[in-house]
Amino acid sequence: MDHEKLDAALAEYFAPWVRDLSLRAETFDADSVTLRLPQSDRLARLGGMLCGQAMMAAADSAMVLALINQFGQFRPCTTVQMNTVFLKPLSGQDALVRASVVRTGKSLAFGEIDIRGATDGRSVCRASTTYALL
Amino acid sequence: MDHEKLDAALAEYFAPWVRDLSLRAETFDADSVTLRLPQSDRLARLGGMLCGQAMMAAADSAMVLALINQFGQFRPCTTVQMNTVFLKPLSGQDALVRASVVRTGKSLAFGEIDIRGATDGRSVCRASTTYALL
Amino acid sequence: MDHEKLDAALAEYFAPWVRDLSLRAETFDADSVTLRLPQSDRLARLGGMLCGQAMMAAADSAMVLALINQFGQFRPCTTVQMNTVFLKPLSGQDALVRASVVRTGKSLAFGEIDIRGATDGRSVCRASTTYALL
Amino acid sequence: MDHEKLDAALAEYFAPWVRDLSLRAETFDADSVTLRLPQSDRLARLGGMLCGQAMMAAADSAMVLALINQFGQFRPCTTVQMNTVFLKPLSGQDALVRASVVRTGKSLAFGEIDIRGATDGRSVCRASTTYALL
Repeated sequence: MDHEKLDAALAEYFAPWVRDLSLRAETFDADSVTLRLPQSDRLARLGGMLCGQAMMAAADSAMVLALINQFGQFRPCTTVQMNTVFLKPLSGQDALVRASVVRTGKSLAFGEIDIRGATDGRSVCRASTTYALL
Repeated sequence: MDHEKLDAALAEYFAPWVRDLSLRAETFDADSVTLRLPQSDRLARLGGMLCGQAMMAAADSAMVLALINQFGQFRPCTTVQMNTVFLKPLSGQDALVRASVVRTGKSLAFGEIDIRGATDGRSVCRASTTYALL
Repeated sequence: MDHEKLDAALAEYFAPWVRDLSLRAETFDADSVTLRLPQSDRLARLGGMLCGQAMMAAADSAMVLALINQFGQFRPCTTVQMNTVFLKPLSGQDALVRASVVRTGKSLAFGEIDIRGATDGRSVCRASTTYALL
Repeated sequence: MDHEKLDAALAEYFAPWVRDLSLRAETFDADSVTLRLPQSDRLARLGGMLCGQAMMAAADSAMVLALINQFGQFRPCTTVQMNTVFLKPLSGQDALVRASVVRTGKSLAFGEIDIRGATDGRSVCRASTTYALL
């Protein structure tokens, strides 16, 4: 896996509206992928804070890439469930979205996502997800 | 509360990227608001199905409107947590997103969201949320 | 399905510690099962309120019975995920735990649980669950 | 904080039925508490595996102790929400239940729990929780 392949997957597998987030691959290792979500006025709600909808969309997207990264290729899968907890607001900086594969079985995969401010490094959002492998 | 006020709230309180969903108020009663999410190629992932990211964003947005509807005005609040379950895919039709306020306390509000196909009426997604009232 | 079969399933498939809850079948229909959780000092935490641990255990157990009820027999399954929201405390009365099967697919089943006071009928807890059918 | 205080809290604040789990403090640091859940036939469901109900109860209980540990004393709080994911079964060994405080605000606290086999060290269950501080 490399940055180009992950960025290509972002362009290929996601809806145009999700691609508007301008997510891009930042780093990755065997079990995780980190995406950068660039700061944008288009993602800010009243008060200038990154909207929660963008955090959830970025978390789900990062997890799909973490599974592609782990399997070495795209494998059809579908999100079964995602639980997201919003710890605190984020404003005035990019976000780093790290998705980790916790476990993959025959038909299910489990992951966890942590979103942090790219500048201050503070965690603002946690999510856990279940995917069905098709 | 009326359609115009709810549609105005959609334009006023949400990030431009969320407004791109083109959500609009469909019906409402004392405890719930139903939004219509129009079918769009921009929200479709590989295979033509409505992407889960759009469902989560619509669910969260509908709940904010259900709280505005219940309180009779915008009240500052923030999503604490949202759990979403994806029951089955949706394609080829609008979605109806019904958010119900389950309980409001002094500092917390609880809600549930059901997303159905506007044509076939079948439930495709359920979410439950907790909001902090500020 | 009948009360005897459901009560027999409660005795057969659950851990002894779970059977200590003294859950028993109250009513059922095609898609749901309602269990009664009798009030007990052994389930009360400081302050006399029904402990959340008992609510979660009852919710999970009720869902297993709702699946048995729907399939007409015990089918090996395992809880993949459960999200529980605690709306308000319950004290001084039995609880009624209603588990509804929302959807069953080939390998996954989805359910929702509502817990109410048996006397005042007010909802105190909601849960949503995903089960893997083995 | 010390083991005696944590074990005393286990005896004082929890329902008798929860105390039947025989949880005891294993280790702790500034942000986390680890409890040991001893293997017991009374917690095993059909097949000899630790029942999910016991994992959820242990996770919730460990988090309450992690908050006591962090605040240096018992502070009235109530579980708002808990999401639990069951990664794989556990049998034939004790479980170690580690609860970490992720963030505490004025009125809300967030935590995450990991349950592992005490012998093989493999993670079998993850939970995330929100508590209201009263």
